[in-house]
Amino acid sequence: MVRIALFGAGRIGRVHAKHVAEHPDLTLAYVVDPVEGNAATIAVMTGALVTDAEQVFADPAIDGVVIASSTDTHADLVQRAASAGKAVFCEKPFSLDYATADACAQTLNRRKSRCMLGFHRRYDPSFRTVRERIRSGEAGAVHQIVVFSRTGAIPPLDYIKVSGGLFRDSSIHDLDMVRYLLGEEMANVYAVGSCLADPAIGEAGDIDTAMITMVSRRGTLVQINNSRHTPFGYDQRVEVLASNELLRVENLAQNSTVIGVRGGFKSAPTVNSFLDRYTVAYRAEIDGFADMITKGTAPLADHNDGLEAQRLADAAVRSFREGRPVVP
Amino acid sequence: MVRIALFGAGRIGRVHAKHVAEHPDLTLAYVVDPVEGNAATIAVMTGALVTDAEQVFADPAIDGVVIASSTDTHADLVQRAASAGKAVFCEKPFSLDYATADACAQTLNRRKSRCMLGFHRRYDPSFRTVRERIRSGEAGAVHQIVVFSRTGAIPPLDYIKVSGGLFRDSSIHDLDMVRYLLGEEMANVYAVGSCLADPAIGEAGDIDTAMITMVSRRGTLVQINNSRHTPFGYDQRVEVLASNELLRVENLAQNSTVIGVRGGFKSAPTVNSFLDRYTVAYRAEIDGFADMITKGTAPLADHNDGLEAQRLADAAVRSFREGRPVVP
Amino acid sequence: MVRIALFGAGRIGRVHAKHVAEHPDLTLAYVVDPVEGNAATIAVMTGALVTDAEQVFADPAIDGVVIASSTDTHADLVQRAASAGKAVFCEKPFSLDYATADACAQTLNRRKSRCMLGFHRRYDPSFRTVRERIRSGEAGAVHQIVVFSRTGAIPPLDYIKVSGGLFRDSSIHDLDMVRYLLGEEMANVYAVGSCLADPAIGEAGDIDTAMITMVSRRGTLVQINNSRHTPFGYDQRVEVLASNELLRVENLAQNSTVIGVRGGFKSAPTVNSFLDRYTVAYRAEIDGFADMITKGTAPLADHNDGLEAQRLADAAVRSFREGRPVVP
Amino acid sequence: MVRIALFGAGRIGRVHAKHVAEHPDLTLAYVVDPVEGNAATIAVMTGALVTDAEQVFADPAIDGVVIASSTDTHADLVQRAASAGKAVFCEKPFSLDYATADACAQTLNRRKSRCMLGFHRRYDPSFRTVRERIRSGEAGAVHQIVVFSRTGAIPPLDYIKVSGGLFRDSSIHDLDMVRYLLGEEMANVYAVGSCLADPAIGEAGDIDTAMITMVSRRGTLVQINNSRHTPFGYDQRVEVLASNELLRVENLAQNSTVIGVRGGFKSAPTVNSFLDRYTVAYRAEIDGFADMITKGTAPLADHNDGLEAQRLADAAVRSFREGRPVVP
Repeated sequence: MVRIALFGAGRIGRVHAKHVAEHPDLTLAYVVDPVEGNAATIAVMTGALVTDAEQVFADPAIDGVVIASSTDTHADLVQRAASAGKAVFCEKPFSLDYATADACAQTLNRRKSRCMLGFHRRYDPSFRTVRERIRSGEAGAVHQIVVFSRTGAIPPLDYIKVSGGLFRDSSIHDLDMVRYLLGEEMANVYAVGSCLADPAIGEAGDIDTAMITMVSRRGTLVQINNSRHTPFGYDQRVEVLASNELLRVENLAQNSTVIGVRGGFKSAPTVNSFLDRYTVAYRAEIDGFADMITKGTAPLADHNDGLEAQRLADAAVRSFREGRPVVP
Repeated sequence: MVRIALFGAGRIGRVHAKHVAEHPDLTLAYVVDPVEGNAATIAVMTGALVTDAEQVFADPAIDGVVIASSTDTHADLVQRAASAGKAVFCEKPFSLDYATADACAQTLNRRKSRCMLGFHRRYDPSFRTVRERIRSGEAGAVHQIVVFSRTGAIPPLDYIKVSGGLFRDSSIHDLDMVRYLLGEEMANVYAVGSCLADPAIGEAGDIDTAMITMVSRRGTLVQINNSRHTPFGYDQRVEVLASNELLRVENLAQNSTVIGVRGGFKSAPTVNSFLDRYTVAYRAEIDGFADMITKGTAPLADHNDGLEAQRLADAAVRSFREGRPVVP
Repeated sequence: MVRIALFGAGRIGRVHAKHVAEHPDLTLAYVVDPVEGNAATIAVMTGALVTDAEQVFADPAIDGVVIASSTDTHADLVQRAASAGKAVFCEKPFSLDYATADACAQTLNRRKSRCMLGFHRRYDPSFRTVRERIRSGEAGAVHQIVVFSRTGAIPPLDYIKVSGGLFRDSSIHDLDMVRYLLGEEMANVYAVGSCLADPAIGEAGDIDTAMITMVSRRGTLVQINNSRHTPFGYDQRVEVLASNELLRVENLAQNSTVIGVRGGFKSAPTVNSFLDRYTVAYRAEIDGFADMITKGTAPLADHNDGLEAQRLADAAVRSFREGRPVVP
Repeated sequence: MVRIALFGAGRIGRVHAKHVAEHPDLTLAYVVDPVEGNAATIAVMTGALVTDAEQVFADPAIDGVVIASSTDTHADLVQRAASAGKAVFCEKPFSLDYATADACAQTLNRRKSRCMLGFHRRYDPSFRTVRERIRSGEAGAVHQIVVFSRTGAIPPLDYIKVSGGLFRDSSIHDLDMVRYLLGEEMANVYAVGSCLADPAIGEAGDIDTAMITMVSRRGTLVQINNSRHTPFGYDQRVEVLASNELLRVENLAQNSTVIGVRGGFKSAPTVNSFLDRYTVAYRAEIDGFADMITKGTAPLADHNDGLEAQRLADAAVRSFREGRPVVP
C-alpha cells in the first residue's frame, strides 16, 4: 500500500481524504491541520493519525502528500515535500505571487520531483472527451472556444479578501481549461470587469463579473465569462466550435424532474457548487495521483501547467487595469 | 392548372384553401359552405367563386374536391364526387357509421377512384422519418410503440356531442399512426376509459381520458394514451422501441426561450392545437393531393386506411364497453 | 452506535455495506455469505466480522439485519430476525410464493416488528418530489400514470431462470411505484407480453417485453411498459398527468456532453444500470433504515407494501396467461 | 387598403412580397427589379404590376415602399421616397459608408418621415420576450450578455466581396440585438478576428471568425461571437445573465425527432438559414410596417437604430485593425 499524508482538513481536504481512504492502492496515514477538530473528524472517518508536518516529512514510509491547506502554506510545504522525496498533489496555486510559485516549480523541475496540480476539471469525463476529440483530429481545426464559468452563490467577503481576486482565484481554472483543451499558448489577453452583483465586493477592491478574450498563436479565438452570481446555481459550460464538430459540455441538473403547468415546463436548477458538479472528477484526480506514484503516469496537470495558467491570470489582471490587450 | 373545389369553409377548410391557393399547380375554383359568410371569407382570400354542390359536380373543368364539411355530409359528397369522376381528398371519416363508410369505400374501389383521406399526421416529417427507419430495417424489429395524444384544451360540449366519442373522434388518429408506422394489423385491442377532466363530458355520455393496449399479429406491443386535457398545451408524442433504435417524436414548443431562476429553469408551453403542431403536415398533405392528381402518386392515406382505423376505433369502443380485449 | 449484520455479500450487498459503514449512526458488525470470498471482501472494506446466521441472531448487541442474500433465503431469515427482535431491512420479495410471503408478513405484524422492504426507487429524490406534489394536492387530481421501465442489457439466462419471470422480477418495482405515487389500490389489471428481444428467454419459458394496463378504484388509468432490452442503456421514466400539472421524471445521462455535426446533435447514452441510476436512492434507503431503528420513523416501504405489489404482479401473470383483465 | 411598392425581387424581396400580399390591410401594387424575371415571378404570385422607380414615386396612391434591393441603391431610394412622402421600410444599411447613411437619416429626421429599418430579429417573439423582461425590471439588473451568431453555410465569395466585411455585414445584427435588449449605449468596443474556416475569404481581404467584447456605459459586459461556418446549421443564440433571471434564447431545430442508439441519442440539426429561423419575425415585421403606416405606431427599429449599429460595427472594424479597444 502507498502511504499518504494530508495537509488541510477543510472542505476540499475532506473530499480528498475520503477518496484516498477508498482507493484500493492508497492508505491515508496522517492528517495535519492547525484546527484540531477538523483533523480529528478525518481521523475518525479514515483511521489516519493526526500529526504535524515534521513527522510527515521525517517518516520515510510516507510516499506522497496531498496539500489542501490554505494557499499561503503551499510553497513551503511543496518545497519540503520535494526535499523529502515525497510525491506531491497540491491544490492550485503554489503561491498567489508568481515569482514564489515559479521558484517552487523550478525546485521541482531541478529535483525531477513528481507533482500533480489540483486542476480538477481536467479529470472531468466530459471535458476529457472534448479534449480527446480535439487531440485526435476528429473535431477538426478549432475556431472558437467559449467558457461560461459562474459560481452561483456569492462567497463570504472574508474569502474574497484573501482569494487573490476574481481573475487569479476563479478565472484561472477557465484559463487552464482553454490550455488543456487547445494544447496551445495564447498570443494576447484582453479582460474587462465590473462589480455588478455585490457592492461589498467592489468595496473590498475586487470585481464580481468579468469577461476575457484571447487569441491563440494560431489564431483560435477564445471567450471566457465569469460571475460570482447566478440566480439558478452553479454554471460551468464550455463550447468549442471546430471545423467538423461543435463540442459542448452542459451543466449538471439537481434532478431529472420536469413539471408541466399552464405557463410551460419547469426543470431543476443546476447543482449548487463545484463539489456537486465535480464529484466524479475529484475521485478521478486521486486515481490519477495514485497512478502517478505507482506507475509513473504523467498527471493531467502539473506545476508547469499551474505556472502557465497563473501567467494568463496575471495578464488578465494587467489588461483589466490598463484597459488594453496584453501579451501574457 | 388543376382546378379544385372546396366543401366546408370552417377552421380546417380555411387551412386547406390557403394551401391549395398557394400551390403552384392548383387553383381553388369554388368554395361551398352552408354559412355564406364563411365561404365569402375564403373567396376574398383566394379568388374562388362561392357556389353550391350542383355546380361543382356539373363542371367538367373541376379535377378534384377537398371535403372539409361536417362529417354527416361526407358520404354523400364522396359518392357524388366519385360518380362525377373527381379526385377526392376527404377529412376522416366518411361516416361515423362503419357500414356507411364501408359502402362508400367500396364505391371508390369499384370505380377505381383516386381518394386521399385526411390523416394529416402521416405527412408530418418527423413521423415520416420514424416510419422510414422502420420500413428500411435500419431501426430493427419493433418491440413496443407508445403514443401520447392529449389535446390540451377541452373542446366545447356541442362538439363532444356530435364527435362520435373519444375513441372514434380522437384515438382514431393514434390508431392510424400505429398502422402507419408499423405496417401491420392488430390481433387484439383492449381499452379502458374514465371521465376525469370534465364531468359535463360524462353527463353527455362520453369519456375524456382513455388508454388502449394492442398486440399486433407478430407480437409487437402497443400503448396509446388519450386525454381531452393537459395543463400545458397540445401533447402528441410517439415512441418506438426497436432492436437497434429508440425512435421518439417530441412535442413542439411555442418558442425557444429558457428562463433560469432561483427554483430552476422555465421553458415554453407546447403549441396550443393541432393547427399549430401540424402546419408543415397540412401543407404537405395538399402537395400529396396535387401529386395524386397530376402524377398518380399514391397518397400516404387512402379510404381503405380510413376503414381500418375505424375498425380499430370500433373495437376500442366494444372493448371499453365489455371490459375485455376484443379482436378488431 | 447501532450495530448491523448483513446477509448476502453480492453486488447489492456490497452497496448496502458501503452505506452502512459510512453512516454516522451505524456500524457494520457482521457479514454472512455462503461464498467466503464475497464476505471477506466486505470485511476488509468495512471492518465487519465474517460470521454465520447463528452468531448474528444469538448476539443481543445486533440491532438490525440487512437481508440481501438470494431470494429463497429471505423468508427464513426474516422470521428468525423477527423472533430475535432485530429490525429488518429485506430486499424484495420475502418469497416468490405469495402464501409464504404472506405468512412471513403476518409474523411481522403479530410481533409488531419493524421492517423495511427494499423498494429503493421510493427513496429517489425525483420520485419523492412527484409523490409529494400529488399528496399535497398541488398537482391536482391524477388522470394518468405512464411508467417506462426497460433494463438495458439483457441479463444472463441463469438469472432469468430463477427470477420468477418478468412480471414478478421486474414489473413489480413499477407496480409498487404506481401504488407509491398514487396512494390508491387497483380495481383491475391487464397484461400482455411477448418474447421479442432474445429467443433464449422464450425457450426458458419467460417473456422479455410486456405492457400492463390498470384502472385504480377511483378511475385513474395506468400504463406500464417493460423490456429487458434497449439500445441505449437503462430506461426508467415516469409521467403523471394530473389536472394542474404534468409530472415527469426523466432518465439520467452518462454525461452532459453534446456534439453537433453535419447530421445533427449527439448526446450521451443513459447510465447502464439501476446501480448507477439509483446511487442517491440506495444511500437514502440506508438513512431511512437508520431512522427507523433510532427514531422509529416509518420506512417509505414496508412488508405490507411488498405483499400488495406482489399481489399486483401475480394478477399480471394471471391476466397474461388468461388473456383478460383480472381483479388483483 | 394601403398600397405598397417593392424594390428588389430577390430572396428577401420575395419573402416581404408574400407577407405584404397576405396582410389584410396592405396591397402590393408595384414591384421594381432590374432583373425582369425576378419582378415577374412576384407579379404572378401577388398580382402586383412590374414597373420602374419613376412610376412608383410619381404615383400619389402609393403609401409606402419596401426597399430590398442591393445595398448600393438604398440611399438614393430612401431619399426619393422621403421626398415623395412615402413611408419607408428599408433593409439595413442605408449605405456601407457611414457618412452617406447619416446624411440619409438626417433627411428623414428633417422631414419627420416615418422609417422602419430591417432589423428583423427585433420582431422575433423570443427576443421580444427577453427584452420585455429586462425593460419591465422583472429580470433585474443585467450583468452579462452573450450572443452566438454563426451563419452555418459559408456564403459565395461574390457575396463576401460586396458584403462590407464580417463586422458590417453580419455582426451588425448582433450589435443591434445588444442595443435592443439592453436599451443602453456602449462605452467601448474590442474586436478580434481570424480567417479559419475558408482561406478564400482571407484572400478576399475578409475574416470568417470574430469575437467582440463591449462594456456598456453602466458597466454591463457583452460578448459576441461570429462565424461564417458551423457543422450543424444556423446558430443564433442569446444569453442574458441578470440579477434575478438568466434569459436564454435557443436555436430552432429542423424537427423534434430523437433517435436513441448504442452510443447515445441523436437529434435534428438546426434550421439552415435566417429565412427558416425567422419566418415568424419576417411576418411580424410587415405587420409592424402596416401599423406604422395605419396607426402611427413606432417601429421596433428605425433609421437612428441603423446608424447606431453601424457606428458600433465601424468601431469593431477599427478595433480589429488597431488591436485595441476603441470608443464607438
